Amino acid sequence: MPMTAPLTVEDDELALLTDLYQLTMTQAYWREGMDDWATFSLFFRRLPAERRFMLACGQQHAAELVSRLRFGERAIARLAETGRFDDAFLDWLTNWRFEGDIWTLPEGTPVFADEPLLEVDAPIAQAQLLESLLMNLVQLETVLASKAVRLVMAARGRPVVDFGLRRMHGVDAAVRGVRAYRTAGLAGTSNVLGGLRHDLPLNGTMAHSYILAHDSEREAFRAFARHMPDTTLLVDTHDTLSGVRNVIGLLRDEPELSIGAIRLDSGHLAELARDARRLLDDAGLGDVKIVASSGLDEHAIDALLTAGVPIDAFGVGTQLGASADAPVIDLSYKLVEYAGEPRVKHSPGKANLPGRKQVYRHVDDAGRFTGDTIARRDEQLGHGSPLLVRSVSRGQPAPDGMALAASARERVMEARGRFPEPLTRLEPGTSDYPVTLSEGLAAWR
Amino acid sequence: MPMTAPLTVEDDELALLTDLYQLTMTQAYWREGMDDWATFSLFFRRLPAERRFMLACGQQHAAELVSRLRFGERAIARLAETGRFDDAFLDWLTNWRFEGDIWTLPEGTPVFADEPLLEVDAPIAQAQLLESLLMNLVQLETVLASKAVRLVMAARGRPVVDFGLRRMHGVDAAVRGVRAYRTAGLAGTSNVLGGLRHDLPLNGTMAHSYILAHDSEREAFRAFARHMPDTTLLVDTHDTLSGVRNVIGLLRDEPELSIGAIRLDSGHLAELARDARRLLDDAGLGDVKIVASSGLDEHAIDALLTAGVPIDAFGVGTQLGASADAPVIDLSYKLVEYAGEPRVKHSPGKANLPGRKQVYRHVDDAGRFTGDTIARRDEQLGHGSPLLVRSVSRGQPAPDGMALAASARERVMEARGRFPEPLTRLEPGTSDYPVTLSEGLAAWR
Repeated sequence: MPMTAPLTVEDDELALLTDLYQLTMTQAYWREGMDDWATFSLFFRRLPAERRFMLACGQQHAAELVSRLRFGERAIARLAETGRFDDAFLDWLTNWRFEGDIWTLPEGTPVFADEPLLEVDAPIAQAQLLESLLMNLVQLETVLASKAVRLVMAARGRPVVDFGLRRMHGVDAAVRGVRAYRTAGLAGTSNVLGGLRHDLPLNGTMAHSYILAHDSEREAFRAFARHMPDTTLLVDTHDTLSGVRNVIGLLRDEPELSIGAIRLDSGHLAELARDARRLLDDAGLGDVKIVASSGLDEHAIDALLTAGVPIDAFGVGTQLGASADAPVIDLSYKLVEYAGEPRVKHSPGKANLPGRKQVYRHVDDAGRFTGDTIARRDEQLGHGSPLLVRSVSRGQPAPDGMALAASARERVMEARGRFPEPLTRLEPGTSDYPVTLSEGLAAWR
Repeated sequence: MPMTAPLTVEDDELALLTDLYQLTMTQAYWREGMDDWATFSLFFRRLPAERRFMLACGQQHAAELVSRLRFGERAIARLAETGRFDDAFLDWLTNWRFEGDIWTLPEGTPVFADEPLLEVDAPIAQAQLLESLLMNLVQLETVLASKAVRLVMAARGRPVVDFGLRRMHGVDAAVRGVRAYRTAGLAGTSNVLGGLRHDLPLNGTMAHSYILAHDSEREAFRAFARHMPDTTLLVDTHDTLSGVRNVIGLLRDEPELSIGAIRLDSGHLAELARDARRLLDDAGLGDVKIVASSGLDEHAIDALLTAGVPIDAFGVGTQLGASADAPVIDLSYKLVEYAGEPRVKHSPGKANLPGRKQVYRHVDDAGRFTGDTIARRDEQLGHGSPLLVRSVSRGQPAPDGMALAASARERVMEARGRFPEPLTRLEPGTSDYPVTLSEGLAAWR
């Protein structure tokens, strides 16, 4: 019997990963017999200062998960223990099923302020209950993908690899985060379970401890290269350029060994990469690549490549793992319609757009995005492409909608080719990307 | 058959939550027959700019978890599929057990740069394999507790409640985070599963959607108050002071209802709280409390209380859920001894202290902390209290060590009473808390 709590959240407990008020409000709706259909909209009011767009990620995954949500026996028993719920309500909860629709942006869609990432249409006691879990699930992937895509943009086609498992917030973030990285276009991950589960190639180098456990760096390099052909050797444990010379000496003395790359992990990367490249080239090792890591972010990568520093691939950990410069997005999940009537709150700074919506994206003749229109869902706009698709229909995942989730990585790559220039920039600043309201929606407001 | 990936990580998969190089290095050690004992030390080199101390949390929980780590059949099968590992090595991995010792700070210990939160003594192929998972597990709780304790300090005895589930990074963060909040001294959480699993009282109010789904705010208040005696009513959906007047009107007309508190969630909190307090008091409702939320952090709470604003409790979400101002801590897990010899790397800016260690904390006559000494583990310092305890001994959780984890919340409260004045401040700045090296350790260096 372990003395500490388990890490796992079983399927039959997941419904308890919610804020208490979702359950108390649901009990109140149930007692009042309020079961008209409601629409809730998931959106954010402002982009983080460090982001010109967000990549909407995780919403189709989350929609599929919540469509299967159940209150298992164990969950019901725990709720009973709190003494806050009637037996009759708990019985009703045992049979609770999501029977509504969930509209989502396809995974990997660039999204801007006020645009729904997702809308839920369902009897109010079903739609309300999903709030906390949906927000938790969608935020993680959206925040991480939105950071990762900036690294991909900065690297201009060079591979960027995730080294961030140790900086991610716990187990679920570490596994599901790799799904977001895959969508964003990272080339690989060091994270074994994440990569295997979400189909991103595994990459690995070596740690300083391996060098230090051997009698000499040269001996450590030799041993590791024998075991792992074509590997990447970490050269900075003692002195980076001495490390590079040790690699060169090793390959000169044992030409049957193959080394794929060296990794720089400290010091002045621009200077060291140039010197290392020269040493390798002079030794006829032009095909040994240089991988750089060490506190990198998109700005550092951009600066290195702008200066023409010969780095072939980047490993990013600390700045990626929790999206440190924008670790949260202020998502809202708001009631926008109940019993067929648009609803809206008026709290200062927190007002929202009423009613069921659709988002249209417009392109110019060259295929570049020129702006979006947020419209009523039932409005026929006549121009632009509607973005929101029905991912869950009457409680069942819609195959057409779900198929779009599988092509998320390609969607991001394609979208990047259609960005107007301001969206391609990395420095903070407004994107000047116009998001307007349709006439129909403006009239409701 | 779900189309999307599960959220759970089963016990027999947890060993795969590691960086690839841990496994390739372990295979290399195994092939080389390197099985001498190693010591790895988990520490950070710098405090985040926004923190004057960190609360070491999660390390005893993590130590207990990794002491039970196994490579199950499914994990072995997945590793085999990668084509990177020998069958003989995978057989060996099937029987892999952690048989070493883990020394930890007791959970809830304030910790400073260069001090080990944890040290692992074990055959190198056992200690190496724990790196990524230990770092992932310990970072989460340490980062969240270190933020949460600042909110507790700012609130000067008033309750602070976690509303952050929706801003936390995924499922594991959301559940295990509540363990950190409990340690840090939060009074409650809205997070049902987190609170139930980690024994923190559940709190809940109501959402704007509940108000909007009813024909009027007054009607919504009446319904909710009937269902949930002593509840907290959210008064800012339309206009905060009108909301307060609706509460007063309701209690005047239906005095059998009981309302515990009102919640302000937008606007100018100081002004609104004063006006609301006056309205409630004038109506004879002096015992109805005022709860405030809406983008609060420790600085905002401190400013409100310094100005004497009559707020009785605080709900904090966005700024807490991912510790937004310091979402990562740059933990290192470094080989410091192998085969009885201290080891150290020299990478610029990334050097570390060699050898097995102990940390001693000193107090003055008033019981206040005056500074720490980092010493060799085998050194008898003669003054100060040793902090690191053996939490896992020869692969088994040590009951004495684990018992200390249970008193983490009390440890934090007690430590806060012993802080020298600079550690009690919230604004960024150095704490001037002296951490020195013992003579023995300095000699090794």
